[in-house]
Amino acid sequence: MTYSVKFLPYDVKVDVKENESLIRAAMEAGVHINASCGGGGVCGKCRVLLEEGSIEGGVSEQLSKEDKEKGYRLACLSEVTSDLKVRIPVESEIDTSRLNLQAGARHTAEVMYSNIDDLREDGLFIPPVEQIYLELDPASKDDNKADVARIISHLRFKHDEHRLSMQLNLIRKIPDIIRKGDFKVTATIVRPVRKDGKNEIVNLEPFDTSDRNFAIAVDIGTTTVFGQVLDLHTGDILAEHGEFNSQISYGEDVISRIIFAEKGDGLEILQKRILETINKILEKIIKKAKIGRDEVTTITLAGNSTMTQLLLRIDPKYIRRDPYVPACTVYPPFPASEIGIALADHTIALIYPGVSSYVGGDIIAGVMASGLYRSEELTLYMDIGTNAEIVIGHKDWMVCTAASAGPAFEGGGVKFGMRAAKGAIEDFAINPETLEPMIITVGNKKAKGICGSGLITLVAKLLETGVIDSRGKFDRSLETPRIRQTDEIWEYVLVYEKDTAIERDITITEPDIDNLIRAKGAMYSAALTLLEEIGLNIKDIERIILAGGFGSYVDLESAITIGLLPEIDPEKVTYLGNGSLLGCKINSLTNALRRDVAKVVNMMTNFELASTHSYMDHYMGSLFLPHTEMNYFPKVKERLERLRK
Amino acid sequence: MTYSVKFLPYDVKVDVKENESLIRAAMEAGVHINASCGGGGVCGKCRVLLEEGSIEGGVSEQLSKEDKEKGYRLACLSEVTSDLKVRIPVESEIDTSRLNLQAGARHTAEVMYSNIDDLREDGLFIPPVEQIYLELDPASKDDNKADVARIISHLRFKHDEHRLSMQLNLIRKIPDIIRKGDFKVTATIVRPVRKDGKNEIVNLEPFDTSDRNFAIAVDIGTTTVFGQVLDLHTGDILAEHGEFNSQISYGEDVISRIIFAEKGDGLEILQKRILETINKILEKIIKKAKIGRDEVTTITLAGNSTMTQLLLRIDPKYIRRDPYVPACTVYPPFPASEIGIALADHTIALIYPGVSSYVGGDIIAGVMASGLYRSEELTLYMDIGTNAEIVIGHKDWMVCTAASAGPAFEGGGVKFGMRAAKGAIEDFAINPETLEPMIITVGNKKAKGICGSGLITLVAKLLETGVIDSRGKFDRSLETPRIRQTDEIWEYVLVYEKDTAIERDITITEPDIDNLIRAKGAMYSAALTLLEEIGLNIKDIERIILAGGFGSYVDLESAITIGLLPEIDPEKVTYLGNGSLLGCKINSLTNALRRDVAKVVNMMTNFELASTHSYMDHYMGSLFLPHTEMNYFPKVKERLERLRK
Repeated sequence: MTYSVKFLPYDVKVDVKENESLIRAAMEAGVHINASCGGGGVCGKCRVLLEEGSIEGGVSEQLSKEDKEKGYRLACLSEVTSDLKVRIPVESEIDTSRLNLQAGARHTAEVMYSNIDDLREDGLFIPPVEQIYLELDPASKDDNKADVARIISHLRFKHDEHRLSMQLNLIRKIPDIIRKGDFKVTATIVRPVRKDGKNEIVNLEPFDTSDRNFAIAVDIGTTTVFGQVLDLHTGDILAEHGEFNSQISYGEDVISRIIFAEKGDGLEILQKRILETINKILEKIIKKAKIGRDEVTTITLAGNSTMTQLLLRIDPKYIRRDPYVPACTVYPPFPASEIGIALADHTIALIYPGVSSYVGGDIIAGVMASGLYRSEELTLYMDIGTNAEIVIGHKDWMVCTAASAGPAFEGGGVKFGMRAAKGAIEDFAINPETLEPMIITVGNKKAKGICGSGLITLVAKLLETGVIDSRGKFDRSLETPRIRQTDEIWEYVLVYEKDTAIERDITITEPDIDNLIRAKGAMYSAALTLLEEIGLNIKDIERIILAGGFGSYVDLESAITIGLLPEIDPEKVTYLGNGSLLGCKINSLTNALRRDVAKVVNMMTNFELASTHSYMDHYMGSLFLPHTEMNYFPKVKERLERLRK
Repeated sequence: MTYSVKFLPYDVKVDVKENESLIRAAMEAGVHINASCGGGGVCGKCRVLLEEGSIEGGVSEQLSKEDKEKGYRLACLSEVTSDLKVRIPVESEIDTSRLNLQAGARHTAEVMYSNIDDLREDGLFIPPVEQIYLELDPASKDDNKADVARIISHLRFKHDEHRLSMQLNLIRKIPDIIRKGDFKVTATIVRPVRKDGKNEIVNLEPFDTSDRNFAIAVDIGTTTVFGQVLDLHTGDILAEHGEFNSQISYGEDVISRIIFAEKGDGLEILQKRILETINKILEKIIKKAKIGRDEVTTITLAGNSTMTQLLLRIDPKYIRRDPYVPACTVYPPFPASEIGIALADHTIALIYPGVSSYVGGDIIAGVMASGLYRSEELTLYMDIGTNAEIVIGHKDWMVCTAASAGPAFEGGGVKFGMRAAKGAIEDFAINPETLEPMIITVGNKKAKGICGSGLITLVAKLLETGVIDSRGKFDRSLETPRIRQTDEIWEYVLVYEKDTAIERDITITEPDIDNLIRAKGAMYSAALTLLEEIGLNIKDIERIILAGGFGSYVDLESAITIGLLPEIDPEKVTYLGNGSLLGCKINSLTNALRRDVAKVVNMMTNFELASTHSYMDHYMGSLFLPHTEMNYFPKVKERLERLRK
């Protein structure tokens, strides 16, 4: 259910979902309401007058009985439950004409889903591990072929299955299983990547168990690990859970993990830790999905190259040393229990192949999940994070690279930076006259800090209103107590102490802005360099796919304004979410994808920025908001000129 | 160097090798000389008169000075060193005309060798595991593909090697090995059986080690285990050693081993024991061959189905239960160390495939080694032993079966039975007039007992001279102290106590003969049944291949006389020796054979005698010497009639 909300005196309308808060509706509409505390009715500044329609909530101690009766409500506490007309009171309205020039609606990227039904329609819904029920002829004196031969010949003649093989540990169990099931058994078969490869029988169970076939998908992030249980008959996700990667105590980023792995039994310790995390997740999702551990036939895992090598106990030391060589990028399937994953001996682990030391299986998983490799349009795939990975291409070719963006996107290196948890400032507007802020936090709680997507919006809005310049420096001439110098560092006060949850003023500082500029500069210049290497221009990009934990919240216009994303119609930007996990899921459902992955990995050309001479020039040029070359951003240029006039 | 020996008064000539003993020359020529003690000059009965030429030795205390000067010598101590004329003295000569009718020369089967040069000429000398030296391009920023990808792409583009794969445990070692060898490495590659199968890289070593590639061949017999080290560049056997199978203490035959394996941790114990035996052999042959344990790239093992399953710790209980089903007959390659064979992790174990519970990998190895599967002639392959296996066929088809012959062929169930060790009576003739024996033992030592091949000759000669009848019963009417009844059992005294090494009379008894009749009856009737099942006749057999420990010593005419072998020209009989070991050796040298093995196993039809109704009839008919149906043995019939007239 959506309702229409009209904001007066600006005469701006916006459609919002039922129970959306009124302050978010205003932000959505590009209407400024002073709001200091982030929500929760603490500061009482976001008073609005309800002229038509009814709302839920909207009152607190900050609102006098009188005002309440007049129809005033606190926007941050008001939930939309009908069509509304709302007037922003004079006290919080400065210059209608000016404010109306503010950037309009927020555009977050549309979320992309993988469609199981498509797979089914295309006849591709054949998992890499299948189960087949066999009614074998019982052994007799006239037909006393070996048990294994009986299974293989039955599969050959009754099910047209060929090139079958079986390992010793299963052979050992076969005679008793066959007889327990009275020659009625279910075989579990791992499909090969190559069409003419071997079909390996990995398990045999008595009787018909072919209706119970489950897979697990795991994304191994440097920071967090997610797992899902999938039903291979329906394609449904039965359970899902995430945990912090318990390797974190040995270093926050891949480089510090590699350094730890190089010392003593560091490699063994890190493998043990990641296995602990994975096994903890398995424990929870298997229980939640109400399946048996031995009913899981595959586990697909994707991670960056370092995470993958640590999981497999392959020394990653050469990943961090010039010329940055991973041990392996395409891994063979193997029994998950072999490395210590708490699954049955017959559960096959499939590792997502990567391309290079810094473009790993997580990125390839995302490329597969997003369908980039089948796209006709020239697509820019960006996984935004401390390690920023970029893929550019379409169905005929792909190039990739990775850049170290630093931790700014994840709230690191920012004075009040934090993850996108409750209380994180995630949206922001600024009154160009009073320079008073409009602040929205995750969960509408008292502000605690600034998350990555919030930082991008903050910097964009400060830039648009001229509070900072293109170098990210505050305009020292502005007269407002919110801009100040503390310990020789210039900063803007977002929330004063009394309205925060942390008993300190929350500010955004010049070093914070500088960190963001360097992070976005690294990403943008990486894309620019990559394009240049293949003789294309940033304007040729027809489509952008964002992946990673943060892409769904980022305001696209803000991201373009600061020069993180190239200027593109926001509708051309799609958000994939956890592309790595999604890729693992699709891999679990269709073996056809594994064949495509092999092709994609082979066709993808990796560029090392460190060996690409123009990268440093591009990087230096990108250390401005949005860029020294304003021709890359004609609309931003036009808007900045308009807003600052 | 060979010499001609003429025996007078029979005027019989024979060519013998230098240093052959004179008594063996006489046996070879079919000339009877009384000889009681088996050799060693103990009984002094084998006196002969040297008329021309010179000999080495031939004297002992049993010969008076006078006789010596006259030119008498003891035949068992005389070595031929020139052309000779030798007269058998009157005292030991009865009836020249009669003796001259005795069966003539001994025919043992010609030994068959596998020819490495043939393989090389046919371009088939490509071992299942090869080593290739690679000079990789060093990694650089412009070419920093993964280490594994570097190896695989080098093999693809420089060596035309495709469908390559590698397992985790090797991937872990790759980065350091590559750099240790400064990008010069030697890859060890396991070839697939199917031409389009995967080529698995199982090892990588720094620098060029491709000139050191060795294989091990192991025959796992129920009683003895043999191992060989092979140089895969020359095809030479560098070392060889045999040990008793230390499982023997848990039962002499496969059935008692299976029974033991079924109890408690019996299976684990038996696996441990056979591994101990194999590892003991490896220790010796690797040391003797002066190679490194890690220079061995494959170990090929062949054994009967029970030995194979015990080695691989696969419960063999269904092998001994109707309908006699083995767990598996075609095994995947696996790392030898995986089951506890003391070789490097990269050494691949190849298990010879079998056909059924009682026609195992040892027989298939023999079929491959003998070239039966490429033969144009209808061939009967017999592995003679406690478990008698029979294969009949040629290049277009093959059938096989197994019969339990009992231990008689190996000296078991025979009162003075023993293995073919020193002192075992291995050849025998009987004077038809005096019924006195001519006895030759292994090593010309005082007699200790009777070995399998000796037993066959004994029974044949007793039959030919009418001492026993076609039921194997002694002619009670014959007047000689050598035929007597002890404890109600009739027997013939071969050697009297004083001339033996065991201080007892050595005799052959009616139960001994009965055991042999049942053993040969089982074999012959198995062949007859098998032929009948496929609509052929015993007379269609064009060629016989004997395998097993005992085939090289058996006198072919004796074997035909007792009805163990069908009547065939002795030149058509070939002795393969340890066919199982030979098959393993060839398998180590050429991968082409492995492809053929798969074909052979698939084309071979197994018959269970227990479910073949005619077998019991054939068996009953075979419990005579040579057979109730004398038309199967026209020449034997004719000879028996001639000798007994």
